[in-house]
Amino acid sequence: MRDAGRAGDTADTAGGAGGTGGVEDASAVRRRPGRRPGSADTRGQILAAARQIFAEKGFDRATVRGIARQAGVDPALVHHYFTSKAGMFVAVMDLPLNPEEVVPVLIDGPREEVGERIVRFVLTLTADAEARQPLLAMIRTAMTNDQVAAMVREFFTEELLDRAARGLGIPRIRMEAAFSQMFGLIVMRHVLLLDPLASAGVEELVALFAPAIQRYLDGD
Amino acid sequence: MRDAGRAGDTADTAGGAGGTGGVEDASAVRRRPGRRPGSADTRGQILAAARQIFAEKGFDRATVRGIARQAGVDPALVHHYFTSKAGMFVAVMDLPLNPEEVVPVLIDGPREEVGERIVRFVLTLTADAEARQPLLAMIRTAMTNDQVAAMVREFFTEELLDRAARGLGIPRIRMEAAFSQMFGLIVMRHVLLLDPLASAGVEELVALFAPAIQRYLDGD
Repeated sequence: MRDAGRAGDTADTAGGAGGTGGVEDASAVRRRPGRRPGSADTRGQILAAARQIFAEKGFDRATVRGIARQAGVDPALVHHYFTSKAGMFVAVMDLPLNPEEVVPVLIDGPREEVGERIVRFVLTLTADAEARQPLLAMIRTAMTNDQVAAMVREFFTEELLDRAARGLGIPRIRMEAAFSQMFGLIVMRHVLLLDPLASAGVEELVALFAPAIQRYLDGD
Repeated sequence: MRDAGRAGDTADTAGGAGGTGGVEDASAVRRRPGRRPGSADTRGQILAAARQIFAEKGFDRATVRGIARQAGVDPALVHHYFTSKAGMFVAVMDLPLNPEEVVPVLIDGPREEVGERIVRFVLTLTADAEARQPLLAMIRTAMTNDQVAAMVREFFTEELLDRAARGLGIPRIRMEAAFSQMFGLIVMRHVLLLDPLASAGVEELVALFAPAIQRYLDGD
């Protein structure tokens, strides 16, 4: 299962009819001539503006208003297409998850099973090559580019970690500990390919990692 | 434990006679005139050969004999300068630790404190910028270069994880779980700079992470 999409790690870019394909699709859309507000390429214009503003200002200091100004559209149109600044970041990075939707799924439900839900969610999400690739691209870029690292840090801090820590009523450092473990696991499984971690089944890894995540989130 | 010949990661570059960083500095420091066949640049020749052979064959398939042949020296000289294949890898990667020395330090001592020893050791080691930089360079390269990823995987698997798992009498996947957590923590602390993880003190992080590491290594 894991390797089904692996060969596509690079080939997919060329193949790309399927899936979200946000960045490439967006720039393809953007190339269409014609610049009327709300026209075919408005979404692409906004995305291009968002990409530029995020790069210049980082996630925290970017604003919907500033991105709308850069794109030459009304801020309401930005909300129409992307709902929020986070939604724009998700689209720019081509991410397979929107924290606004993910966090409630993770923190709702039995409190004593939140660790298990998180581990199973992350493993299931990243088992899908199409979802995994933009995540790995983001991770790889953040590892070598300080500007992208700052964007990623600000986005995850604000949209995922703060939100989840508030929802669970715990200090943020505990969410960060859980995040660091899931990050390390994804890298071992899909970048460093460390066996048996890389080939282990989801349930085996849930059994191994969920108690640690649960403990980070519960405190002692 | 750290290579005595390692000098400043950056400062030396300006000063040295054509100095280009750790590996070359080491050979400069060790230069002893008039030695034959272990002449002035023998160590450097062996390192250059090791770099090439590791890149071509990976860590597992590289041999001391093959590296000696490539360098045009007797295998005994390789052992003289680097002790082992692992020692050569450590020198090629400019790593601040040699698993042959590190593993006993971590696994000897009270079994119920091994998690704490590992967390404290990794945090203390990476607190030192000179030790941290080659580690981060290796991590970053492994994230984007499959060949380096394979070398790093093989080296850590064989020299660190297998060795420690055997020493502790546990399945290797449990060492890998601990390794994935420490890897994630280092990246959060020194690459993604996720606060408060990045600025927390060693003791706070030992208290947070050691129980998880201990649990991975103990089983339930």
